Amino acid sequence: MPVVGMAGGGQLARMTQQAAIALGVPLRVLAGSAGDSAAKVVADARIGDDRSLDDLLAFAKGCDVVTFDHEHVPGPHIQKVERSGVPCRPDAAALAHAQDKLVMRDRLSALGVPCPAYAHVPPAAPLAFLEAFAEEHGWPLVIKATRGGYDGKGVWIAEALDRETAEMVGRLRTEGVDLMVERHVPFRRELAALVARSPYGQGAAYPIVETVQEGGICTEVIAPAPGLDEDTAAEAQRLALGVADSLGVTGLLAVELFETRDGLLVNELAMRPHNSGHWTIEGARTSQFEQHLRAVLDLPLGSTEPTAPCTVMANVLGGDDPDVYRRYIHVMAHDPAVKVHLYGKDVRPGRKIGHVTALGRDLDEVRERARHAADYLRWGEKKR
Amino acid sequence: MPVVGMAGGGQLARMTQQAAIALGVPLRVLAGSAGDSAAKVVADARIGDDRSLDDLLAFAKGCDVVTFDHEHVPGPHIQKVERSGVPCRPDAAALAHAQDKLVMRDRLSALGVPCPAYAHVPPAAPLAFLEAFAEEHGWPLVIKATRGGYDGKGVWIAEALDRETAEMVGRLRTEGVDLMVERHVPFRRELAALVARSPYGQGAAYPIVETVQEGGICTEVIAPAPGLDEDTAAEAQRLALGVADSLGVTGLLAVELFETRDGLLVNELAMRPHNSGHWTIEGARTSQFEQHLRAVLDLPLGSTEPTAPCTVMANVLGGDDPDVYRRYIHVMAHDPAVKVHLYGKDVRPGRKIGHVTALGRDLDEVRERARHAADYLRWGEKKR
Repeated sequence: MPVVGMAGGGQLARMTQQAAIALGVPLRVLAGSAGDSAAKVVADARIGDDRSLDDLLAFAKGCDVVTFDHEHVPGPHIQKVERSGVPCRPDAAALAHAQDKLVMRDRLSALGVPCPAYAHVPPAAPLAFLEAFAEEHGWPLVIKATRGGYDGKGVWIAEALDRETAEMVGRLRTEGVDLMVERHVPFRRELAALVARSPYGQGAAYPIVETVQEGGICTEVIAPAPGLDEDTAAEAQRLALGVADSLGVTGLLAVELFETRDGLLVNELAMRPHNSGHWTIEGARTSQFEQHLRAVLDLPLGSTEPTAPCTVMANVLGGDDPDVYRRYIHVMAHDPAVKVHLYGKDVRPGRKIGHVTALGRDLDEVRERARHAADYLRWGEKKR
Repeated sequence: MPVVGMAGGGQLARMTQQAAIALGVPLRVLAGSAGDSAAKVVADARIGDDRSLDDLLAFAKGCDVVTFDHEHVPGPHIQKVERSGVPCRPDAAALAHAQDKLVMRDRLSALGVPCPAYAHVPPAAPLAFLEAFAEEHGWPLVIKATRGGYDGKGVWIAEALDRETAEMVGRLRTEGVDLMVERHVPFRRELAALVARSPYGQGAAYPIVETVQEGGICTEVIAPAPGLDEDTAAEAQRLALGVADSLGVTGLLAVELFETRDGLLVNELAMRPHNSGHWTIEGARTSQFEQHLRAVLDLPLGSTEPTAPCTVMANVLGGDDPDVYRRYIHVMAHDPAVKVHLYGKDVRPGRKIGHVTALGRDLDEVRERARHAADYLRWGEKKR
């Protein structure tokens, strides 16, 4: 059996372990500490820093393929692992587009993929540049760190060229953060397209989903996206498969999309299992985690057929009371069919610590079931 | 989070790990070696002998509850673990009925549960006893070791009181094996009833399945049992729930049944996740492994609702060529929706090394899909 190495010890590696167990494929993870989400459930967990070249090379030795549970492994390190003879999927060239938002925008624009208007913010005179950009595209602006953001971190909305914006930009400049700016797109809603691509070149697309965000964090995913017309859904799938192909992605590619009056625009890319795909564990014939393993192992991809008319995934965020287990009794008794996933993470207010999934025929009912379970696991009786 | 300890490192513990990961419940296993099926995929695997009292007590220390992936832990040891303050589910008193076929038969008969005619074979003059039993019930006879059997081991069919039978009984007597005899039931087919019971007393029953055996090994499970009338299905569920209740089972109880012209008869009991329940991983809203965890943790039980009109599970047995992974490509390309489960075990001819599951509407088609995948994983092109 080939050994799959996954750099990163978060919940994505943790859930990949469930799929690896089924396939009989040994999974090795590189985790920052033995207390990491994935390290708690993987027999072959190596402790180290996945940003350190030495740790990464030591980890990769003996793996048949290396993949990632996040975007933070430096590209040059990935290239060195490949040169040591262990293929990385995705490779450094493809992953660059998920690591650097400016690289991604430039490439997608060159490919003719619709994106919001954007520009690099020059480190000299950034405020004047922002003002000029706003004159063309209007306020508010979306200011982003080109690298290193996640879950709304590294993204700021500037309403005007006021003192707040000036101070923020000044602070980021001092910290050496490279910035870009984008038009604030007046979208109807956010969608996500999840596809897989294997080294052989096979592609597979999941149904398009709607993602609901609060404060930059995804709270809910509805599969399939309600009321989305077939043409737009097919367009979104084609767009994602095309991007995967053009960028040479191997493994999963999640494309976050804005649905606007004028069509679809790409927001972000991720090349790994993605929060918008957790619903596939129960809601699709092949979970995104199994699909990612199949893709990075260059096995034929699995069926993306949904298992129910609608599936709703709700993220469980940490509340004030860390004893989530105590609240299992109510959630499980209230709804014996809701599926609970907890990531083995310390509970901190607002932190993603798990998710729940409900499936069924009636979207309103399914959505209410998922929300109730997620809210209850967070708040208990408090918020009822 | 409570720690669940599972004694035994086989595939049942391995698949329990997948469910434990989702629930965020730390699973600790006691495995004979680091190469055991479950030890390969559980971070907290302790290596030891689950028949040794010292190893068992050391293992149980720090667990909130202890359960089992087989029936071979001696009852007195389980009692000592309980006396050390760690509850065992099932407890020694209940488990005795799955460990000793004579204890089981005596108890079920006392409860009025229909069983085949049976008797203990007295160690003195066993052959005369078998002859007398056959005079009453007819040949062939089923001779069983009262303890220690599994997968057809410990069960013999005697066609007549010939030299073969005399030699076998003589050999078993010499080895000190305690024997019982049963009427060979002319059954139509074999069924299995899988139920869960929690310490609180909640019960949950899965749909009744048909099990297909070859040479004492289950090769295929069809859920629900095709053509089974509703009354008989309900009777089988009631029977299993009643037995679980009467015996004080906590966790899962699998009841293997004969369907005969005159109704249902109990064949065997198992108090753990069971081969006849592997279909529930994809085919039921709550897998048997999650259900077992919920039951032993005294959490509310999960929905046993099927996720598809029919599900077929086929066991993958070892063939001549140990490189099963090489055959993944064909199986996955041929049927992107079939689910493959491999147990990380060394391949030996005839050994259960995994299973596959197919789901759908048309039983013949689903059955053919499951069989094709299982056969191909065993034989490759050879048997096509």
